[in-house]
Amino acid sequence: MKLTKLKSYFPIFDWGQSYNKHAFSNDMIAAVIVTIMLIPQSLAYALLAGLPAEMGLYASIAPIILYAIFGTSRALAVGPVAVVSLMTAAAIGNIAEVGTMGYAVAAITLAGLSGVILLLMGVFKLGFLANFLSHPVIAGFITASGVLIAASQLKHILGIDAHGHTLLELLSSLFTHLPETNYKTLALGVSATLFLFWVRKGLKPALLKLGLSTRIANILTKIGPIAAIVTTTLIVWGYDFAAQGVRIVGDVPQALPPLTLPSFSPELLSTLLIPALLISVIGFVESISVAQTLAAKKRQRIEPNQELIGLGAANIGASLTGGFPVTGGFSRSVVNFDAGAETPAAGAFTAIGLAIAAVSLTPLIYFLPKATLAATIIVAVLSLVDFGILKKTWVYSKTDFVAVATTILLTLIFGVEIGVSVGVVLSIALFLYKTSRPHIAEVGLVPDSQHFRNIHRHKVITDPQLLTIRIDESLYFANARFLEDYIYDRVVGDCHIKHLVLMCSAVNEIDMSALESLEAINTRLHDLGIKLHLSEVKGPVTDKLKHAHFWQELTGEIFLSQYDAYKKLAPDEAIKNFNHFI
Amino acid sequence: MKLTKLKSYFPIFDWGQSYNKHAFSNDMIAAVIVTIMLIPQSLAYALLAGLPAEMGLYASIAPIILYAIFGTSRALAVGPVAVVSLMTAAAIGNIAEVGTMGYAVAAITLAGLSGVILLLMGVFKLGFLANFLSHPVIAGFITASGVLIAASQLKHILGIDAHGHTLLELLSSLFTHLPETNYKTLALGVSATLFLFWVRKGLKPALLKLGLSTRIANILTKIGPIAAIVTTTLIVWGYDFAAQGVRIVGDVPQALPPLTLPSFSPELLSTLLIPALLISVIGFVESISVAQTLAAKKRQRIEPNQELIGLGAANIGASLTGGFPVTGGFSRSVVNFDAGAETPAAGAFTAIGLAIAAVSLTPLIYFLPKATLAATIIVAVLSLVDFGILKKTWVYSKTDFVAVATTILLTLIFGVEIGVSVGVVLSIALFLYKTSRPHIAEVGLVPDSQHFRNIHRHKVITDPQLLTIRIDESLYFANARFLEDYIYDRVVGDCHIKHLVLMCSAVNEIDMSALESLEAINTRLHDLGIKLHLSEVKGPVTDKLKHAHFWQELTGEIFLSQYDAYKKLAPDEAIKNFNHFI
Repeated sequence: MKLTKLKSYFPIFDWGQSYNKHAFSNDMIAAVIVTIMLIPQSLAYALLAGLPAEMGLYASIAPIILYAIFGTSRALAVGPVAVVSLMTAAAIGNIAEVGTMGYAVAAITLAGLSGVILLLMGVFKLGFLANFLSHPVIAGFITASGVLIAASQLKHILGIDAHGHTLLELLSSLFTHLPETNYKTLALGVSATLFLFWVRKGLKPALLKLGLSTRIANILTKIGPIAAIVTTTLIVWGYDFAAQGVRIVGDVPQALPPLTLPSFSPELLSTLLIPALLISVIGFVESISVAQTLAAKKRQRIEPNQELIGLGAANIGASLTGGFPVTGGFSRSVVNFDAGAETPAAGAFTAIGLAIAAVSLTPLIYFLPKATLAATIIVAVLSLVDFGILKKTWVYSKTDFVAVATTILLTLIFGVEIGVSVGVVLSIALFLYKTSRPHIAEVGLVPDSQHFRNIHRHKVITDPQLLTIRIDESLYFANARFLEDYIYDRVVGDCHIKHLVLMCSAVNEIDMSALESLEAINTRLHDLGIKLHLSEVKGPVTDKLKHAHFWQELTGEIFLSQYDAYKKLAPDEAIKNFNHFI
Repeated sequence: MKLTKLKSYFPIFDWGQSYNKHAFSNDMIAAVIVTIMLIPQSLAYALLAGLPAEMGLYASIAPIILYAIFGTSRALAVGPVAVVSLMTAAAIGNIAEVGTMGYAVAAITLAGLSGVILLLMGVFKLGFLANFLSHPVIAGFITASGVLIAASQLKHILGIDAHGHTLLELLSSLFTHLPETNYKTLALGVSATLFLFWVRKGLKPALLKLGLSTRIANILTKIGPIAAIVTTTLIVWGYDFAAQGVRIVGDVPQALPPLTLPSFSPELLSTLLIPALLISVIGFVESISVAQTLAAKKRQRIEPNQELIGLGAANIGASLTGGFPVTGGFSRSVVNFDAGAETPAAGAFTAIGLAIAAVSLTPLIYFLPKATLAATIIVAVLSLVDFGILKKTWVYSKTDFVAVATTILLTLIFGVEIGVSVGVVLSIALFLYKTSRPHIAEVGLVPDSQHFRNIHRHKVITDPQLLTIRIDESLYFANARFLEDYIYDRVVGDCHIKHLVLMCSAVNEIDMSALESLEAINTRLHDLGIKLHLSEVKGPVTDKLKHAHFWQELTGEIFLSQYDAYKKLAPDEAIKNFNHFI
């Protein structure tokens, strides 16, 4: 019993018990591949966040190990990712100057704060909050972020200075500095970009043609970028491009991750609180989507609240070892999965690999041009950009379209924080607005059945004395008055009506405000000589209504099914109408 | 055609055309009664707002006339009301010192800003926003405000200084100054309070016993407070109580309302924006509830968006004539109605009466003790206090109870602005939370019918191969994942299931996120050898689904009724189970 509890908090005890040689060798192979892929990616995302390259490596070591202990996904690889790195840059860009000590401290603090938020959300089981980010808002946000990230990297491809956190700022800054373009950098950057696009699209088919197995071809494709890194580094070294203005990564300390502490300045913490919250939620959503996609393939289960704890621990780890905010990344996790990782131990081995890289390989990247890292980022993020979501939502649901379009526009114009916040609030507001003006159908009996449908859509039988209204929404404060107005408008002037049945098959809740409206409707209809009945009231709603006076005061009856109501209240076949649907 | 348009913007042209001598005399009588009642009330609410007494009169003159032109209610009396006066005091109390010029200017500005907000809400037809204040939140807020108002007036009854905008501040301030109590003031205040309570409860039965008609008794009861005003004023004058520390109204300028301008200081406007918004919404909700209650009695209609324009004009009027925020008040409107007012002209006559009072009667109230005005306020607001709402919601709905209890507590502890804001946000959040975890029922066929109900509540027929799930909520982003998890958990390990029917009678909307979840469910069930079907999909939902790939990719069918699905998918009578409800 106790062990089960322990396992639920430390999933490591779950898979650790059955760990064997076979799993070990699979995990080792996966780790080597992922390590090779992670080195350039980690450096690149540090660059994107405006931080020294080595912080990208540091952010990939401790977090991976901590996630392996606390996380529930067996394939998720935790570390710096594109969107979170962009959000980090946006959050701390206004607090400190890029390249200063204050900037790095702010990044470390942001990771710590975000870790605490994630941990608390996990402990208090608030994982469900992430459900309030609708798919279209996330898709729109990721697309717009991809565009922003690509735009932010153009300066490295051109070899110029430019800055900004919105598309307009970035483009105008790029345009101003365009005359300073360094053509050697541009040549390197463009070649690297084109090569990387080819690796992504053309390498795999080419390798398969050469007779390699799909798995090997997949892995070579994923680590292909290393070729670009090596080649461009050699060119810069061989032709002494650094002296000709090509910017390079330069000195990277040859050391294990340092022990660091986040700042506890109340001022800094309060400034970072909202960005940290957004980074936590966005990071969690990204991570859990990846984890669930991969888990579904192997029929494993992901526990969202435990994931929050795993990611929280990873971020706190990042802030204590010179890193910056991290989450479960899509591309690295897929590589890990494709490379055959069986348990989170693969992650731990990757961490060891990266630690070895941090102490021994950093001199090798001295001459690595920043343009190559920028090319890596651009190629990676452009795969995230999908404006197709605009067309898809336009066709299916205008409400979702408005949410996506607003999120994309605001993210591009005002930056990531405003974009995603307004997107979330707007999608909730649109939902509330819809529920405040529910669809209401007048229904009649479908011939030769006991089924009732909208008189305007189906051929149905009705009775002039019996008006049946189906309200297609839970009744609550936002639509209580709407229902009242609708009913008064409908019955005024129709002197045939003797019975009004509210068909409640779609009413999942009647709150206090709606109950008061129903009482008012009951009284007012009584004054007009009309009896109010209810039909098909659900169990949970009935349970509540029984506690209310309304139950006794109702002038009519409560019928189990609409057909029962119809049989009782409209028995006279002679006067029935047969409606033809329009 | 044009006249109709004109009438809808200026309802005065509607009733103005048919105005006659009979209506005129009724309106005049009502105006005289209301004027008498409004004088002490207006002075008292100015006191409550921390403003000079004459501003209460000014706030009752121009607003009444403007509402008569633009408003749609024929009985609503616009002017200062208790809750809005309290909110005014809370809003400007932190900006300026009571009694200073800055304080009055802030009040005038608040009225102007609130007027502009109301006007804009009316023009953009945003009246529906008021529906998002649930009845329990309003009831809780009014109750807590009543307590706060009564507590804020105790200092006048005791004749001491005290201040604060929360219950704790008020009580501790009262306690500190308690030794300074002026016993003459206390005697006057307590007597006035007891007398006014008696007028409210005991006067009408006494008058009826004397043989007066109900109408006359009602009117005398409403203007009874005048007796307290006159008597206490005479006592203070006759015994020279003012020299013995009894605080009096003192000098009130003998003049028509002055022309004033609100401040256009951006700093002041931005500080007042949120309070003005809250005052506008609360004032609108109070006003429209009163207007609709009275209109229902005479079968007249209230147009919420035109009401916003009427109240907006009234508040702008208040800010241009030395007033403070106003709205349609309950007690004054009821008097107006009971006194037989037929058209808004009654309001205009009341305004004339108050203007006469402002230029000629103000010297008479020089000796009016503030304690009497405080007694008027206390007796008026204690009728608003109804803690019964706590019990009522506790019995009916725990969610509503949480919303009411939180609103009451926060209003008392942190003041009106936080109380009502958190109440509104909380009630919306609770609604969203409920919809994010919908009730899901497994259903079976009710014997001898075509009706399907919850297997745990009813005796129903089921088939092991056919699982029918009724989701009692619209499917949208907040519950899309919940549905996925529920279905996977339910089908895993139940190898009998061949068909899963989602009964959509309560599904009023399937948004893009939920559509993607349904696609995932469809694919996943297909892998498990289970077909997914839908039944009783509503017209508007069907219309949208037809545009989606899901419609083609669905492994099963879409049935008009659940009974059709049952007939087709569970034809074999031999294997059916008969469930006994628990």
